[in-house]
Amino acid sequence: MSTTDKAAGRGASAPGPRQEDAPTPTAGVTRRRLLGTAGAAGAVGLVAGGGAGAAVAAGTRDDPAALTTVGSAHVPFEGARQAGIVQPAQACGHLAAFDLVAGADRRSAAALLRRWSDAVREMTASGRPSTPAAYDDQVADDAGPSSLTVTFGFGRSFFGRTGLNAELPAALAPLPDFPSDHLDPKRSNGDLWVQVGADDALVAFHALRVLQKAAAGAATVRWQMNGFNRTPGATDRPRTARNLMGQIDGTNNPKPSDADFDRRIFVPASGSPDWMAGGSYAVVRRIRMLLDSWDHLSVAEQERVVGRRKSDGAPLSGGVETTPVQLDKVNPDRSLAIAGDAHIRLAAPASNSGAAMLRRAFSYHDGIGTDGTPDAGLLFVAWQADPMTGFVPVQRKLDGADGLSRFLRHEASGLFAVPGGVGKGEYVGQRLLEG
Amino acid sequence: MSTTDKAAGRGASAPGPRQEDAPTPTAGVTRRRLLGTAGAAGAVGLVAGGGAGAAVAAGTRDDPAALTTVGSAHVPFEGARQAGIVQPAQACGHLAAFDLVAGADRRSAAALLRRWSDAVREMTASGRPSTPAAYDDQVADDAGPSSLTVTFGFGRSFFGRTGLNAELPAALAPLPDFPSDHLDPKRSNGDLWVQVGADDALVAFHALRVLQKAAAGAATVRWQMNGFNRTPGATDRPRTARNLMGQIDGTNNPKPSDADFDRRIFVPASGSPDWMAGGSYAVVRRIRMLLDSWDHLSVAEQERVVGRRKSDGAPLSGGVETTPVQLDKVNPDRSLAIAGDAHIRLAAPASNSGAAMLRRAFSYHDGIGTDGTPDAGLLFVAWQADPMTGFVPVQRKLDGADGLSRFLRHEASGLFAVPGGVGKGEYVGQRLLEG
Repeated sequence: MSTTDKAAGRGASAPGPRQEDAPTPTAGVTRRRLLGTAGAAGAVGLVAGGGAGAAVAAGTRDDPAALTTVGSAHVPFEGARQAGIVQPAQACGHLAAFDLVAGADRRSAAALLRRWSDAVREMTASGRPSTPAAYDDQVADDAGPSSLTVTFGFGRSFFGRTGLNAELPAALAPLPDFPSDHLDPKRSNGDLWVQVGADDALVAFHALRVLQKAAAGAATVRWQMNGFNRTPGATDRPRTARNLMGQIDGTNNPKPSDADFDRRIFVPASGSPDWMAGGSYAVVRRIRMLLDSWDHLSVAEQERVVGRRKSDGAPLSGGVETTPVQLDKVNPDRSLAIAGDAHIRLAAPASNSGAAMLRRAFSYHDGIGTDGTPDAGLLFVAWQADPMTGFVPVQRKLDGADGLSRFLRHEASGLFAVPGGVGKGEYVGQRLLEG
Repeated sequence: MSTTDKAAGRGASAPGPRQEDAPTPTAGVTRRRLLGTAGAAGAVGLVAGGGAGAAVAAGTRDDPAALTTVGSAHVPFEGARQAGIVQPAQACGHLAAFDLVAGADRRSAAALLRRWSDAVREMTASGRPSTPAAYDDQVADDAGPSSLTVTFGFGRSFFGRTGLNAELPAALAPLPDFPSDHLDPKRSNGDLWVQVGADDALVAFHALRVLQKAAAGAATVRWQMNGFNRTPGATDRPRTARNLMGQIDGTNNPKPSDADFDRRIFVPASGSPDWMAGGSYAVVRRIRMLLDSWDHLSVAEQERVVGRRKSDGAPLSGGVETTPVQLDKVNPDRSLAIAGDAHIRLAAPASNSGAAMLRRAFSYHDGIGTDGTPDAGLLFVAWQADPMTGFVPVQRKLDGADGLSRFLRHEASGLFAVPGGVGKGEYVGQRLLEG
């Protein structure tokens, strides 16, 4: 019955952009920017669309609730890249790693990726998406896709377990040991990695549950973490968000409009191995923030540690948030405007032979830790064409030397090969698993 | 510096309703209903307001980001009732209990409630609220109050520890033991209880941190839980939301428009003790949902257990979601339309001598539990003038007999006396602590 309800209501209650009108993953970026910059005309247009949908849907007994702005926004599953990399991070996120069950092989792994891909294709569709009936708990009913994205990756251990060692990318070499790391192996790595994001918590939870059920008999959850970002509409700050230290974070992120963006973030068509063409590598770190210690610093001390003003993110070398950082700027007293151990100095591409990565993080907060301080921080996800020219050199530089590192603790880590996107009827990793 | 920025920007960037225009807590209800029912005119008006604010704020270097719909909505702290009871539950919630430190007394407890009340008064103000500088980590900067509410209550243990046993309400008698309970004492009860809700996760987190810092030296966190509800704008379903079982939940909740609403939910002016006039009692239960077991049932079986249709919440006795339940309705085969052990039969006021409570819950999801199943369910918060005519008789009936109880596990419990609201310059509990 509910399936019929949904099918009947779909046409009337789908005021958002339709999938065929927005064939690339950048549709999500456009949508969020419209909202984020408070362009009054754009925002009103979307809300009015929701209202019109509601008017059509009202009056009939079993009509589902009409969708509104946040609910109807969608990011297509199919495209040259997987979704969930270049789109702004959503309000709610789940990261999870799965390990294949004993006896799993290439064939059963392929079947799992097929089930996962088909489920995500349905759940991210425009209008009122459907869910494979066998997995549907109806928790996401009433809402639309709410910008849902699901991104899949392969860990190093996947290749040995499926007899695919010949296809193991060189870029999946284990990350080096960083002296300051405090990694929990039970919450690190894994055969398969899943990143779920949505602007509604019930939609995100529902998608995660569907993926877990679809994995039954093939893979089990190794670890799972929950994160969040600002709710759409809570602010019109356009691109960058505050982290739980109160700092504006992500200002210097590479932008899709940068000339070298694709080269830095995505594996080229000529790259190796073949099946990773159009893909990217995700470094995942659970970075706990030692907030009680951090909050003991004055704002001026915090700004010196980071190198940016806390109120608006402007670099201490002057200007506004987006002004390029002048690492050699000196104060009237001859001291460096950006301190020698300031985070933005050590993390700057200029300090790391141009190394850069696309950071797309969620904050996390799991209450009070066993030590009585907040178990809170950043679910750091960094994207790059090769970790050896992205995360690794930067973290080598930061580890220990970065003034900020005294207030951070890397508690878990993973590195995953995220293949390119899929076309109609394909599943993620098909070129690897059927190559 | 940031304080100056905020003060300068306040006038220009406060497009939401101003506090003096909306002196009662019902302002939040009105706001949410406008959004929730997708009344196109109302929603557009709010968004256009945000756009206008943005236009004024743009262009000046240090102007903070302008607020948009979600961010600018606010619920006044002052009023006849505390905020966070009759307003719809927000997208993000934190529940926490604090225990007074050794050596605490009535005077130090009063000072704590004064600090807490003053901080919340500032954080919930209209426009761009400020934060006591000593506690401000700036995590909430850029957003507005985002419908923030903070609600304070006293546990039974508070009275003995502060020499106030003469003021202990009879209604704070310990809840009876329910045979099916699996309560963790470390996550139950507590001297003081705090409920934080906001439609933005960073605003809610920030408020919780401010309260923790303001408690330093006076009280420590005993337990703390995080919850969520649907994001504003993800659906236009007006009042009721789905829980993590996928059921529409809360249909039969008492409504502020009911003739007997105040009598059922709030302690009357003539009530006892005096200091609880206008207050309410909160029963807090962490109710884990055994989702893996629940999902093994067919939708028809789930509907029989609950007594409502899953797709739209209509009772199995017929009609739509809001149709009164006909408990005596029989099917053509002479079976009861609402099964004998259906949840809505056993929970109905008609089955409990009219007992009723206002449920205002958050869902929770803390990943995978130690048993490998989802650590997820409901942070159930129920409000009533007296637990003995609200939660207790209903739970006595439900415990064990309710078909749904096979899929639930009460893992933590608390009962708190929540005093009435405060006027200008007052703090919560002042009549108790200075009476």
